[in-house]
Amino acid sequence: MEKVNLAQKLSLLEDYWRPRIVGELNGFYVKVVKLKGEFVWHHHEKEDEMFLVVKGSLVIRLREGELHLEEGEFAIIPRGVDHKPEAARECHVVLFEPTSTVNAGSAQSDRTTVAEWI
Amino acid sequence: MEKVNLAQKLSLLEDYWRPRIVGELNGFYVKVVKLKGEFVWHHHEKEDEMFLVVKGSLVIRLREGELHLEEGEFAIIPRGVDHKPEAARECHVVLFEPTSTVNAGSAQSDRTTVAEWI
Repeated sequence: MEKVNLAQKLSLLEDYWRPRIVGELNGFYVKVVKLKGEFVWHHHEKEDEMFLVVKGSLVIRLREGELHLEEGEFAIIPRGVDHKPEAARECHVVLFEPTSTVNAGSAQSDRTTVAEWI
Repeated sequence: MEKVNLAQKLSLLEDYWRPRIVGELNGFYVKVVKLKGEFVWHHHEKEDEMFLVVKGSLVIRLREGELHLEEGEFAIIPRGVDHKPEAARECHVVLFEPTSTVNAGSAQSDRTTVAEWI
């Protein structure tokens, strides 16, 4: 059993919008991801999604309104809710997702990736 | 839909070892808790437990060895594994637990509390 240092794991990432798995519990993955720029509008049919910002800031656009997350803040996007993450500058995020979650959800595209352990 | 600031929520807590719920997703709670001193040895029969330190440092004693967690580090204690959290000084922790988890697990005692939203 080992501890995980989030900053150390994030320092290994050289790309954006590609979550990596850093932990697993109860059928959920803990993932880290670097974000920069704009993602696509999407939603997840059956899964709520949690974004916890650990460095930088993140805007999550919603069909009505938007959320501005700073370091130490999180938001939970309920299943079925369209959202579009945007980060003007590099932002480091922790995600908590069922092991079945695909990053781009409803918007299968070239932005779709399958997460790997790091 | 609103964001949650972990430090703001933790600033509301005036007691130790009493987790409060700050988010819910997919049948899981996100909880915050202030720890100081020693907890009891316990395990959870059916649930893995995650400790993410957001302020201070936390020692999780195991029957063999121990984990030293600093700010920005987490550990997942698998179901069935005896553990005993200890914090020499006040420590702020985020927990991710199934909505069914009881804090003291196998060790039902006066340390057992049912989490409330904050």
